[in-house]
Amino acid sequence: MRDVAILGVGINKKWGELWEMSLRDIFVEAALNAVDDAGVDHVDSMYVGCMSSGLFVGQEHLGCLMADYLGINPVPATRVESACASGGAAFRQGFIEVASGTSDIVLVGGVEKMTDVSGDEATYALSAASDMEYEAYHGITFPGLYALMARVHMERYGTTREQLAHVSVKNHKHGSFNPEAQYPFAISVEDVLGSVMVADPLRILDCSPITDGAAAVVLCPLEMARKISKQPLVKVLASAQASDSIALHSRSDLAWLEAVHRAGEKAYKMAGKTPKDIHLAEVHDCFSIAEILALEALSLVEKGKGGQAAESGMTALGGKVPVNTSGGLKSKGHPVGATGVAQVIEITRQLRGSAGERQVEGARTGLTQNMGGTGGSSVVHILEAV
Amino acid sequence: MRDVAILGVGINKKWGELWEMSLRDIFVEAALNAVDDAGVDHVDSMYVGCMSSGLFVGQEHLGCLMADYLGINPVPATRVESACASGGAAFRQGFIEVASGTSDIVLVGGVEKMTDVSGDEATYALSAASDMEYEAYHGITFPGLYALMARVHMERYGTTREQLAHVSVKNHKHGSFNPEAQYPFAISVEDVLGSVMVADPLRILDCSPITDGAAAVVLCPLEMARKISKQPLVKVLASAQASDSIALHSRSDLAWLEAVHRAGEKAYKMAGKTPKDIHLAEVHDCFSIAEILALEALSLVEKGKGGQAAESGMTALGGKVPVNTSGGLKSKGHPVGATGVAQVIEITRQLRGSAGERQVEGARTGLTQNMGGTGGSSVVHILEAV
Repeated sequence: MRDVAILGVGINKKWGELWEMSLRDIFVEAALNAVDDAGVDHVDSMYVGCMSSGLFVGQEHLGCLMADYLGINPVPATRVESACASGGAAFRQGFIEVASGTSDIVLVGGVEKMTDVSGDEATYALSAASDMEYEAYHGITFPGLYALMARVHMERYGTTREQLAHVSVKNHKHGSFNPEAQYPFAISVEDVLGSVMVADPLRILDCSPITDGAAAVVLCPLEMARKISKQPLVKVLASAQASDSIALHSRSDLAWLEAVHRAGEKAYKMAGKTPKDIHLAEVHDCFSIAEILALEALSLVEKGKGGQAAESGMTALGGKVPVNTSGGLKSKGHPVGATGVAQVIEITRQLRGSAGERQVEGARTGLTQNMGGTGGSSVVHILEAV
Repeated sequence: MRDVAILGVGINKKWGELWEMSLRDIFVEAALNAVDDAGVDHVDSMYVGCMSSGLFVGQEHLGCLMADYLGINPVPATRVESACASGGAAFRQGFIEVASGTSDIVLVGGVEKMTDVSGDEATYALSAASDMEYEAYHGITFPGLYALMARVHMERYGTTREQLAHVSVKNHKHGSFNPEAQYPFAISVEDVLGSVMVADPLRILDCSPITDGAAAVVLCPLEMARKISKQPLVKVLASAQASDSIALHSRSDLAWLEAVHRAGEKAYKMAGKTPKDIHLAEVHDCFSIAEILALEALSLVEKGKGGQAAESGMTALGGKVPVNTSGGLKSKGHPVGATGVAQVIEITRQLRGSAGERQVEGARTGLTQNMGGTGGSSVVHILEAV
């Protein structure tokens, strides 16, 4: 297996309600930005992460469509889907393709166009990440599922409503330094606690938004990157993925993300690292409780202490392990198929030292954690400046 | 890169309108059959090919769902989508994962549950393989698109309406020897010519049906298979994929499948083979004209002579290069995400010498060609008995 480097990254000028752009426009903008950043004149293969373009805009066959509109036919182009972990799963396939020697230059993009449908339709489409027959059809939505997880965490570990709010407050603070973010402004704990209730105890400011957006990266062998890259080099140290039951009621513990834990353990082993070696992380904060659960499953904070980590500032910029410096899903936005790729972009920028106002000083090793559904699938990557 | 073998294959007892089975039931039946055939007690990773479970049954996140219902959590499980080439694309990802050394035993399945919706809804879902914005939304359906391709082929090469019929007649004859087929009975040229018109010149018996079904294979390194396989060994010699414009109107030639040609050329090169070395093939006969175009693009018959090949018996059982001995998509059925995997199963059975009444004597090298949309994506595999 060859070492793999990130040669280029690209994202839309701004994520949000991009009504003037179609699914393909959004993807192509991010992909061309990545190709420009990489400085390459061709790619050998492409992966597209997308959860549900069928339900959101009535279009499947995305690999083919996007290759066509990028003008890169006849290269192989394949869509990868793992619900909200589609972007991370696509990145993993691109990593394997380069590491194996199957292709040299691989473009990995993620995209979702979510605002062309009504709120009810978006809720239905997102529910397709849950067990439709045993969860969604009986009326529970994703905020409802995560609310159950939050309740157990609060009951068992004493996590407070305020601590949940601190996750959103921190991520919005970080996002205020990210002009690409959908909601690039700070909020207060009072704002969260006073916002509309969605599924008790989760309020609207505990929830990531509905977003249109895309993100893309260009991968190549590290040896090639050493020759052609004009950017500081970032190596992919580890790529790992795991699964868990799709339905929440099948889990033995509602306050523990086993797929995240398994993917994390595999990633640490592959990278030859421990949680102590991680300088910063982008984790899947689709809801405030999700960041807490992810950090515990990755052993970045002690079990049961995820809420305290947000409250204490440990995971804020300037803290021990800054988490979601991009603003996270909460502030940056969550176009579900793009999120996993955008996490890789943020860590890459940090490791390059080009993260601007939100730069983490001395960042050398970073982790991304992307998750599908309530944690039925998870993908973890570890990147390092070399 | 390691050599890769097919260790086991499995399919449903019968494809068709499986109203008593859900999407997950269908997949699990085929997957367990493959695991039984392989004789393994675990798998390390899984891919699921599926085109549009979102539009057909309102369920995404299929890798996770199927891993859960197979009881194989926490293994990585990823869905791959490339419209009707989803199964072939999933098989390719499994191949790369084993060849690269990322995993040893990989389960690759494909599935589609298409009969829980109305005919109009199915037509809409399938249209998502075309360019929705520039094709389907303006009223053209898949039979209409392939009818345009057929018209050009007839005009340019003198292909006759009867020759198109011979493709369906041949495949139904083959399918009559396949008890798993949806429509396992012979039809006549007169039957085809007298059947309901769908999109002139294509009649209903030129069209593959709407089908529920799944197919699965187990892959492992060839060296491992030599030690543990109880079946004759089948090696994957080549795996190749290519893309073309998604919309038909963007092509320079409507009677030529460039993505199939490119994938075929790459596969022949990777395998160290020429078209003359291929003893039999499973190609993507979603419509009668599609088999003709595929065989020409793969250089298995001369350009423009695809119709004559069916009429002359060259591609029938007992002919020079038997094509679609399984019955093809036309007779066996076409659960779109499963088709590419089922093609691999048929060639594997033939190379094992276990194809029963439809066995091709002396079959040593076989090819599969799976296609998305009107040929916007295509995946070609070459298998060999070793």
